Amino acid sequence: MTRIETQGSAPSWLQNTWYQVAWSRELGRDTALTRTVLGRPLLMFRDATGAPKALLNRCPHRFAPLSAGTIAGGVVRCGYHGLAFEGSGRCVDNPHGPITSAMRARAYPVLERHAALWVWFGTGEPEGGLLPDLSFIDETPETARITGYLPTRADYQLVVDNIMDLSHADYLHPNSLGGMMTGARTSIKEDGGTVTVEWLAENCTPPPAFHSMVRPPAKADIWTEVAWHAPGLMILSTWAKEAGKARDPANLALTLHNVTPADERSSHYFFCSTRKFNVADAEFNALLGQIITRAFEEEDKPMLEKQQANMAAADFWSLQPVLLNIDSAAVRVRRMLARLIDTERTSEAATAVRGAAREL
Amino acid sequence: MTRIETQGSAPSWLQNTWYQVAWSRELGRDTALTRTVLGRPLLMFRDATGAPKALLNRCPHRFAPLSAGTIAGGVVRCGYHGLAFEGSGRCVDNPHGPITSAMRARAYPVLERHAALWVWFGTGEPEGGLLPDLSFIDETPETARITGYLPTRADYQLVVDNIMDLSHADYLHPNSLGGMMTGARTSIKEDGGTVTVEWLAENCTPPPAFHSMVRPPAKADIWTEVAWHAPGLMILSTWAKEAGKARDPANLALTLHNVTPADERSSHYFFCSTRKFNVADAEFNALLGQIITRAFEEEDKPMLEKQQANMAAADFWSLQPVLLNIDSAAVRVRRMLARLIDTERTSEAATAVRGAAREL
Amino acid sequence: MTRIETQGSAPSWLQNTWYQVAWSRELGRDTALTRTVLGRPLLMFRDATGAPKALLNRCPHRFAPLSAGTIAGGVVRCGYHGLAFEGSGRCVDNPHGPITSAMRARAYPVLERHAALWVWFGTGEPEGGLLPDLSFIDETPETARITGYLPTRADYQLVVDNIMDLSHADYLHPNSLGGMMTGARTSIKEDGGTVTVEWLAENCTPPPAFHSMVRPPAKADIWTEVAWHAPGLMILSTWAKEAGKARDPANLALTLHNVTPADERSSHYFFCSTRKFNVADAEFNALLGQIITRAFEEEDKPMLEKQQANMAAADFWSLQPVLLNIDSAAVRVRRMLARLIDTERTSEAATAVRGAAREL
Repeated sequence: MTRIETQGSAPSWLQNTWYQVAWSRELGRDTALTRTVLGRPLLMFRDATGAPKALLNRCPHRFAPLSAGTIAGGVVRCGYHGLAFEGSGRCVDNPHGPITSAMRARAYPVLERHAALWVWFGTGEPEGGLLPDLSFIDETPETARITGYLPTRADYQLVVDNIMDLSHADYLHPNSLGGMMTGARTSIKEDGGTVTVEWLAENCTPPPAFHSMVRPPAKADIWTEVAWHAPGLMILSTWAKEAGKARDPANLALTLHNVTPADERSSHYFFCSTRKFNVADAEFNALLGQIITRAFEEEDKPMLEKQQANMAAADFWSLQPVLLNIDSAAVRVRRMLARLIDTERTSEAATAVRGAAREL
Repeated sequence: MTRIETQGSAPSWLQNTWYQVAWSRELGRDTALTRTVLGRPLLMFRDATGAPKALLNRCPHRFAPLSAGTIAGGVVRCGYHGLAFEGSGRCVDNPHGPITSAMRARAYPVLERHAALWVWFGTGEPEGGLLPDLSFIDETPETARITGYLPTRADYQLVVDNIMDLSHADYLHPNSLGGMMTGARTSIKEDGGTVTVEWLAENCTPPPAFHSMVRPPAKADIWTEVAWHAPGLMILSTWAKEAGKARDPANLALTLHNVTPADERSSHYFFCSTRKFNVADAEFNALLGQIITRAFEEEDKPMLEKQQANMAAADFWSLQPVLLNIDSAAVRVRRMLARLIDTERTSEAATAVRGAAREL
Repeated sequence: MTRIETQGSAPSWLQNTWYQVAWSRELGRDTALTRTVLGRPLLMFRDATGAPKALLNRCPHRFAPLSAGTIAGGVVRCGYHGLAFEGSGRCVDNPHGPITSAMRARAYPVLERHAALWVWFGTGEPEGGLLPDLSFIDETPETARITGYLPTRADYQLVVDNIMDLSHADYLHPNSLGGMMTGARTSIKEDGGTVTVEWLAENCTPPPAFHSMVRPPAKADIWTEVAWHAPGLMILSTWAKEAGKARDPANLALTLHNVTPADERSSHYFFCSTRKFNVADAEFNALLGQIITRAFEEEDKPMLEKQQANMAAADFWSLQPVLLNIDSAAVRVRRMLARLIDTERTSEAATAVRGAAREL
């Protein structure tokens, strides 16, 4: 972690973007939340006004974790020698002498939006506008939201691959979410910075997660779309209707799948499933939540972790994967992401050269 | 593991040879056995005819372990996206489109012989004839066989050293197998690809494992011979007789000790002890089995693992061992094995050069 | 470990000095004590006269740990093949043939002084005179001594920093040892090979560990001095008196804090607190021992280990610590120690060059 912080940009992560680090509800007042993100130990807390703050969880004095100290009134005090910092990283108390400008904790811009906390690790100006529109989360009452967080010992790109290719549901989730994906008609489009993949399964047997919309023995038409935004944010839209009948526009479910790198081989997986029907039915929400969470926790996460362990430290492409047509969307995402990271690196190198030239 | 599979031959293992990976009885129908061998994650299963098969335990599509899927009718189906493979590595079902020749799981030749499963990892043609004759196992009824398997966190050469120098029995197994080896007359001979060491302890106190042949206070003559075959297979022959009396030819015990590298610092240790006397006595078999297995499991294995841990990653010779006369056989084995590995490497390099020359 | 032993001097440790490896009372007769010191696995035992001995815990024959064998009559016998060694490293029994001069276990000079065992790892002549005078330990009866040992997963220099800057007591030990250090008048002096730092807290509220000398609501004057001797030995002197009153010369407590590197990121922390008052009061000794031991075990050790974990493998200076005035003594110690290590290395290089020149 230290190496990364010291030597600058990590090699395989996009820097100038917002990364979700937590759900808002995970961070209370006068409490701390620590999480390793992009290889950095991060400390999150709220200031006196309740605004979320993020500091490198390492006192600049002797490198003790600030989380081993205390938090009160939006101020973090190191438990080793008592230096106190506010959320901006500014030192607000040095019990041993004057405060100097060098006494700064490394701070990162934080945004609280769509019930989530987002942190900016880049060198560029943080732009709130770069965040995709997730207002569907805000518009959904709590009783129609299923929110979760899964720390996963797999590279974030493997988790993205998993969502960009939902055909896995037929094999990994045959009794809950899948069964109709193999043989569905699919199409893919790229548009600016996004990759979108669509599946239409017609006249299929609806799996249990869709029974509230179509109950067997009736057959269903099920439409699913996943729109990826760099680096690891995916919005999944889906509806089901009885085969051959008209679609009820309310039958729409929107789910955020968002993956943030923890380090090179593990990630933070956040999801928030919302729907436009049965919105006040808390009991149904709990039931559906159980189906979804079980699938992610007991099926996706173990498979992703086994896949990562089986790849050990090898790069995905170096193992020469056999590509199937179901991989098209995931491969486009990997290529677009590689281009974005490459562009960012080239531009940072150019900036460094311009800076050096100015000094001559 | 991945690295090894990708980059070709491992540096310290003989390639073109048969490695025991299991006992036959360990592998049933429609079950899977996974074991890391020569740094490779291996999946073993039986085809529809019962023939054993070995695949790299990594789907060529997205590298999930095939063992996380299902096995039925001799076909392995990946649990992530449903590709199915038969034992030859050929893909027999791609639910998502046509089967192409690229869709192959890495397969390794398997031989089932002498109650064991043998796998060939080399580039050369697998030759069944390279396997030493172990028909003594087949000729021995179950009631006169003691079969075992011990995964051991020590390099396979340390385990081979252990058997090639049985003087350790006096210190490590004083109450079961040893006590008479120090001071025994020994001789060593090299013959083609084998090293054989012989011990003759005359007029000694027989240790408990020999009491069925000679019971104290009678004194015994005990003869032991170990014949090593590359890379880690040793056949131990032994008999005991009352000192000064004639030997009963039936008083012969033959034991296979076979060590297969798991990775650079751990190994699979297989043993099968057979005898030509008391062959139908299941009770005696169980008693003798307990003595032998305890010695290996509670005395050899812990010592070998402590030895390996104490050597850490250091090469054996780099630590400049003080050699005693008891080490002669083990040292000859290490040298012969090093020559064989070196010859194989040189020959593979020559083949590669010839191949390159043809392309010019 | 092996690497270090094989390749010579470790990079970051002073070699030609005495390192405390244990308290005398930790090592009985015919028992073994194993500890990793300066990256070497060490075996300590007593010879037939009771004199302490230290051997590399690795048989020169096949590298089994000697501690897996037996100790009797001051002789260690390897449990694998029976070689026996005395404390000088000389082989005293080879059951398999003649003893040769090559059959030596690596031995290290040991000194038993001041209730402690000291080992010399250097190439130079071991000089008992290099040991600082700790006769205060010998002069103190057991009922006035509090002796402890804490294995700590932190580099020894972090533990030294901790004692050289006692201001941490106000934040880490507010309810036992600290509270009056921030704002105390301090001074530092360097003298030959030592760095001494002094604190004088006047008219302060005495913390619980000082209540036997001054009990609130009375105010206290508390004086503390730490004298560092390379590489990790510190003598802490302290007294307290009622503010404004005369000092009772008996009110003196002397504590040894001694830190020995285990490896690059962990250390052995020894302490021995003595006092000149209440010397026969075993009950008071137990009570004070509890306060001190709890502070070290439950407050210092966890913080040091978190600090080390947070620094991962990074060098202290490479992380560019923000230095406060409280760091002055610790920084001087780090600089003096670096100079001593550097001088030693230069001198060893020169010796090597002279040796090579003689051979020409």
